[in-house]
Amino acid sequence: MGSNVSVGLLGLGVVGSGVIKLIENHQEELAHQLGCGVNVKSVLVRDTEKTRDVQIDRTFLTTNPEDILNDPEIDIIVEVMGGVEESYHHILKAFSSKKHVVTANKDLVALHGPELQEAATKNQCDFYYEASVAGGIPILRGIAEGLSSDRIQQVMGIVNGTTNYILTKMNNEGMPYEDALKQAQDLGFAEADPTADVEGLDAARKMAILGRLAFSTDIALEEVEVNGIKDLDLEDLKYGDKLGYTMKLIGFANCKDKKVEVNVQPTFLAKSHPLADVKNEYNAVYVYGEAVGETMFYGPGAGSLPTATAVVSDIVAVIKNIRLGVNGRQSVAPRFKKQLKAPDQRFGQYYLRLQVKDEVGTFSKISSLFNELNISFKRILQTPVQKHQQAEIILVTHQTSLSNFTTALERLNRLDAVIKVKSYYKVEGDAKNEMARSDQSL
Amino acid sequence: MGSNVSVGLLGLGVVGSGVIKLIENHQEELAHQLGCGVNVKSVLVRDTEKTRDVQIDRTFLTTNPEDILNDPEIDIIVEVMGGVEESYHHILKAFSSKKHVVTANKDLVALHGPELQEAATKNQCDFYYEASVAGGIPILRGIAEGLSSDRIQQVMGIVNGTTNYILTKMNNEGMPYEDALKQAQDLGFAEADPTADVEGLDAARKMAILGRLAFSTDIALEEVEVNGIKDLDLEDLKYGDKLGYTMKLIGFANCKDKKVEVNVQPTFLAKSHPLADVKNEYNAVYVYGEAVGETMFYGPGAGSLPTATAVVSDIVAVIKNIRLGVNGRQSVAPRFKKQLKAPDQRFGQYYLRLQVKDEVGTFSKISSLFNELNISFKRILQTPVQKHQQAEIILVTHQTSLSNFTTALERLNRLDAVIKVKSYYKVEGDAKNEMARSDQSL
Repeated sequence: MGSNVSVGLLGLGVVGSGVIKLIENHQEELAHQLGCGVNVKSVLVRDTEKTRDVQIDRTFLTTNPEDILNDPEIDIIVEVMGGVEESYHHILKAFSSKKHVVTANKDLVALHGPELQEAATKNQCDFYYEASVAGGIPILRGIAEGLSSDRIQQVMGIVNGTTNYILTKMNNEGMPYEDALKQAQDLGFAEADPTADVEGLDAARKMAILGRLAFSTDIALEEVEVNGIKDLDLEDLKYGDKLGYTMKLIGFANCKDKKVEVNVQPTFLAKSHPLADVKNEYNAVYVYGEAVGETMFYGPGAGSLPTATAVVSDIVAVIKNIRLGVNGRQSVAPRFKKQLKAPDQRFGQYYLRLQVKDEVGTFSKISSLFNELNISFKRILQTPVQKHQQAEIILVTHQTSLSNFTTALERLNRLDAVIKVKSYYKVEGDAKNEMARSDQSL
Repeated sequence: MGSNVSVGLLGLGVVGSGVIKLIENHQEELAHQLGCGVNVKSVLVRDTEKTRDVQIDRTFLTTNPEDILNDPEIDIIVEVMGGVEESYHHILKAFSSKKHVVTANKDLVALHGPELQEAATKNQCDFYYEASVAGGIPILRGIAEGLSSDRIQQVMGIVNGTTNYILTKMNNEGMPYEDALKQAQDLGFAEADPTADVEGLDAARKMAILGRLAFSTDIALEEVEVNGIKDLDLEDLKYGDKLGYTMKLIGFANCKDKKVEVNVQPTFLAKSHPLADVKNEYNAVYVYGEAVGETMFYGPGAGSLPTATAVVSDIVAVIKNIRLGVNGRQSVAPRFKKQLKAPDQRFGQYYLRLQVKDEVGTFSKISSLFNELNISFKRILQTPVQKHQQAEIILVTHQTSLSNFTTALERLNRLDAVIKVKSYYKVEGDAKNEMARSDQSL
């Protein structure tokens, strides 16, 4: 049995407490796998006097990061303090002191992952961040090792538990957005300020990380297009449901001919899609590989102990590397300089809801507009005439390029028969004929 | 760039052909990750003249295993020939010649995995078998690495695509077993002799492998209890559907207080269970960890290229180890001598279908029988009286021990009011009140 490996923890919030509990509770299992023990030697906190929900002797706590970063007995720094500036500098300092780093910090990895990886490799250090994407789901290892032999073409993720909880309530119970958000906050699934979640920024960070890994390229966070769920209309969700779709906030990453697109947007998923049944606060990542086909990894995307399992699995990997003497030698540099797809290289199906005048010839004008752009319809649903001689038309297109679809939107807005383009969303999967009965044509 | 690593292939069937295609097509990606190329140097076949669906020069083929096992230029043996005796000896021989082994052979690993692992470790060789369980799903790595920090309590798998296809047809279309089997055979999802699949033996092999890994113990194949799907009655599936359950062939492995049970049986899953939506020939493995909670890994369980991705990902792992000089040093020996649970340590809910006499007092007798054994009911469904003054009662119990349930069955069989215990199945998950309306009591 080798001597213990000492860990220094930066931060003692939700995830940090989980890491301490997990390491304590699973000491025997860890020792069996590693041939040595693991102990948390010191913890950086803001306030050493604060009452905490994890038992830890105050002598282990410090408010000075140097106590940890300069401690020669500490081999592994676990960064679970969050934020970007400070943690970035601590981690760089850790690498320059030849310490390995495990982090759960998606903001940091999304912004500075590639440079931190370079610094790690240069110093022959390990840098792992499994917990930064989809909490307890081992998706980064799944892609990097489990599917290492394949060429990944598409990644779709439900990677934000808050919005998935809200959307589940909206989809399944017809609950308005504000009420669902309130309930998520009451249950601790949403923060007091939910901006980063509901506007899709949190999901975008995770998609940048996933996209880099899946396509071996250097996607920057600002290249991830983002649309959130704040403006969703329950009416659209009801129409979608009738047509066989369920609304999810989907992180989408696709690579074709070495060109990539990464975005986060509310998306209508066919109910038969593996991601469509991922409910409440759960996360899942769907990976389509050229050879393997459809795979999906499902589990808890947040929470103290689930996220801690990812952090401690990373610690296990670092310690195995220490014992084999191979730290800093396993990361693979990106293979490609990223090339983003142009709008005419991006393809999708779209759901579109139009408020139209209930006049003879309206539908004919709309359909010839789409016809000119070579966009054909998969589904058409017209609602009964509403007040003021207006009607709503719901269209679902077949695959079309984003540039064509954008042109269609512009032309629709100029069409006299169209009062308003009320909403449009991307559609994924094939809803088959689930509600063929409800289709009506003008 | 290092020099090429040479692979010797034993077998050129469905999986072997996929391995050759994948290595050829992904040469650049492999070289980028590994810093060297990979080539298949020779292939053991029974007949070098046979026409094949993969392009390979006949000079690479041999009918003599020694040509491969004794070739000093070959570093990795990939065993995809199937069978047990011959492949076992080839692999042992490979280890004694210090060659690493990757196999897709579940029969072999289920029967001889632990001894082969010992031989590998003794010779400082790698032994990987990701493809032996659930084809393209990287579940063994998911457990061994992704969840290395957690204590796994339960594994439930849909690990046989043939039976899942048949059951999907039976569940969703009410198709009789024989027709569904025929359709599966026509589509290539079932073999001409489907015995190993439909009797659950194939799933049992995978569960033995999963159980060993998840609980770090030495489960033997013959300790896996097996029940197949051949005798399922569509009537039961209809009753289950009414009660909110769907029938699946579930491989079940549970560990509590270091005692394990592993079995394969047709099981009613609550429709809300993550495994309930796994359809057609797809596989999925649900893993419940003490800290992480519920996770699930989903994907194709068979097929040439999907299975080949698992094999080639293992080859990638071996080559990374070669380049780091750490082969044979990463496997973890089992931690526990297995202890099997006794029937009074095995708990479950059960579905039970009774044919009873339609007389006053029948239900009272049945319910007091269960009451004496401390078994309470979660759901009761009585069908209208059928011919000859007989009725059917469907019961779903709350959690009870297997020993208590077995006693209940024996006593029911002796009860005068009970004409016949028509069927009983284990139930997993909570179907809530999905069809509360249909409940009736006597």
